[in-house]
Amino acid sequence: MTTSSLPLQKALQAVDILNEKGIDLWLTFVRETSHGGDPILPVIYGSTGLTWPSALIITCSGQRIAIVGRLETAAARATGAYDEIIPHDTGITAPLRETLARLDPQQIAVNISKNDVLADGLSWGMYQTLLDILAPTPYAGRLVSAEGVIAALNGRKTPGEVERIRAAVKFTAQIFNESFAKIRPGMSEKQIAGLLHDQTHRRGLDYAWPVESCPAVNAGPDSPMGHSGPTDTILQRGHLLHFDFGVKVEEFCSDIQRMVYFLAPGETQAPAPVQHGFDTVLHAIQAAAAAMKPGVTGAEIDGIARSIVTGGGYPEFMHGLGHQLGRHAHDGGGMLGPRWEKYADLPDRPLEASQVYTLEPSLYVPGYGVVGLEEDVLLTEHGVEYLGEPQTTLILK
Amino acid sequence: MTTSSLPLQKALQAVDILNEKGIDLWLTFVRETSHGGDPILPVIYGSTGLTWPSALIITCSGQRIAIVGRLETAAARATGAYDEIIPHDTGITAPLRETLARLDPQQIAVNISKNDVLADGLSWGMYQTLLDILAPTPYAGRLVSAEGVIAALNGRKTPGEVERIRAAVKFTAQIFNESFAKIRPGMSEKQIAGLLHDQTHRRGLDYAWPVESCPAVNAGPDSPMGHSGPTDTILQRGHLLHFDFGVKVEEFCSDIQRMVYFLAPGETQAPAPVQHGFDTVLHAIQAAAAAMKPGVTGAEIDGIARSIVTGGGYPEFMHGLGHQLGRHAHDGGGMLGPRWEKYADLPDRPLEASQVYTLEPSLYVPGYGVVGLEEDVLLTEHGVEYLGEPQTTLILK
Repeated sequence: MTTSSLPLQKALQAVDILNEKGIDLWLTFVRETSHGGDPILPVIYGSTGLTWPSALIITCSGQRIAIVGRLETAAARATGAYDEIIPHDTGITAPLRETLARLDPQQIAVNISKNDVLADGLSWGMYQTLLDILAPTPYAGRLVSAEGVIAALNGRKTPGEVERIRAAVKFTAQIFNESFAKIRPGMSEKQIAGLLHDQTHRRGLDYAWPVESCPAVNAGPDSPMGHSGPTDTILQRGHLLHFDFGVKVEEFCSDIQRMVYFLAPGETQAPAPVQHGFDTVLHAIQAAAAAMKPGVTGAEIDGIARSIVTGGGYPEFMHGLGHQLGRHAHDGGGMLGPRWEKYADLPDRPLEASQVYTLEPSLYVPGYGVVGLEEDVLLTEHGVEYLGEPQTTLILK
Repeated sequence: MTTSSLPLQKALQAVDILNEKGIDLWLTFVRETSHGGDPILPVIYGSTGLTWPSALIITCSGQRIAIVGRLETAAARATGAYDEIIPHDTGITAPLRETLARLDPQQIAVNISKNDVLADGLSWGMYQTLLDILAPTPYAGRLVSAEGVIAALNGRKTPGEVERIRAAVKFTAQIFNESFAKIRPGMSEKQIAGLLHDQTHRRGLDYAWPVESCPAVNAGPDSPMGHSGPTDTILQRGHLLHFDFGVKVEEFCSDIQRMVYFLAPGETQAPAPVQHGFDTVLHAIQAAAAAMKPGVTGAEIDGIARSIVTGGGYPEFMHGLGHQLGRHAHDGGGMLGPRWEKYADLPDRPLEASQVYTLEPSLYVPGYGVVGLEEDVLLTEHGVEYLGEPQTTLILK
């Protein structure tokens, strides 16, 4: 399980996808990637940055060419993904024009997309610069979106990528379990988050998203929801305790939500409204998972879970049912969500085998707190496989 | 020296700059910033991410408005930089149109630039989405580039930002000195880099750029140059040893190069070609620093250093003399460089007070290795101030 060969594996996968999509050439055009860069770059180039204007070219006939600043020639070679490295000194215009003239593509797919952040790595300025470079050539008129290529490439996880996610899910379960054993009423959300941080540090792991809200911790009915991080709210008996947490293993993420209920004095089981909330969320996840198969759209799956939650007597959750998971907790591409403006066309995309999704419906039980579970699942030709043990009973403390 | 108030300080500074530049309104428009996002976001919003389509608006009359997904309302407020937070649930179109109609700006500066990566955070897709949103309004025709606003805002460091860089430079000097005491001929470049890594970990610091080439280490004449990181090349007596290294303190970077010469048996001082190379680089830095003042262009300063190196009998260095330094080692905006295509208009920009630059000429001494020094300097109204002790004599071991 080394990362070194992943960019080559993905570059070769991209060649197959270009043939499947009928696209001659895919061009990733970047500069000064320490400022954010193109989100597909880690997939096809690894963690190494590119400083000067640089072009990564993959063709349907299998050519893999990197045009980079001369000082980054060795680093480009070290990615293992490119068999031709073309250095430039003062500007990329000449070598890029020469390379495209030699390859003479009918379509050049570039990283532009209104729908998908992962396929939209070309900035406005770099797009204009590319048009300037191509203006005197036949190629300025041959630009198309690489949206479909990128969605397929990043969505269809290789076995090595799935193993990394599975490892991250496993560590997450360990961290939850060891932390749960130490949580006591009277602790604040921040102290509880600290227990998970200790466990994460002990294992030398990174967080799946910024530590300020990783984990999110919600203790009881008055905890503020959202991405704002744990507060000084004190966990009390009679509270639901909710976690949203993930770690990174070799650059790949988990994203898991778990629920614990702290019995009030005299209680031996969760109160009926709490149990009903938990059961509703669990049922929504199980029904959605059962319906997932290649070809179904994300909106259909979202609708199944959403109607179970509303059918249980709760307002609909104001977020998508789930997103793809990989190098990022929100890994781009098609999602399980309603057709809301902010999701663009992502809920309309058909699911594909080898994609990894989260399933994360939520609801609120007045007087007790938020109920949210989140499971990570791999879609296969035959349905879904849970990446780790799902939570099917409410933990009582 | 807390980071919490920086986004507010910078947002208020932006108000002044909008007035100076005669621009009504500055709009930063982002989504899913965990995928890279807009490089100006940390400056005006801090380290918190934004998940759903979000708009940060700063006006010349001092309004500071964040339109964000509802689950990120509290996080937006916690930045301290925005006095109006407008949540949205399913899409940003309606609240963004309403807000712009209320403010009715004559110009809307957006983050698009062919020249400067730091001012080019708007992706192609988000630019098109913005045009779609504004199509039925008078505002689609009022978009201008925020390039000048961003260059001024990020370039003109506040005293708090300068103090962070100064602290990073100070730690870098400590790490160099403690590592130099332990380096022996017979060690590999990788082992030498490990000494600096140990010192960095011991201080709990982050690296200024990816650890694979932080530090860069070049031992002797056969070490490969560039951004590819330390190799198994063995340091020997009679070798020049060159470092390029930086750390981060509270998100701000240092970027320093240092030189050591390992005396060959019988030598009591550096050989004449080595000393001449060192003196030439030192002279180039000192002459460039002496000429730096507000209003001079980066190309002029670069030319001074470049002609000293070529006048010393060496080929010109195939990189710029220096770049701005801040949250990134390469911090965007105007640079000290030649008018090469890859630098766009950045070398033509006049220097401004409160900017921080590196000065890093280099040359190669056949038989001994690369000579490169790099100093970090603050430009004031009166000239430059070195942020830390510059290296003025070749260290002999």
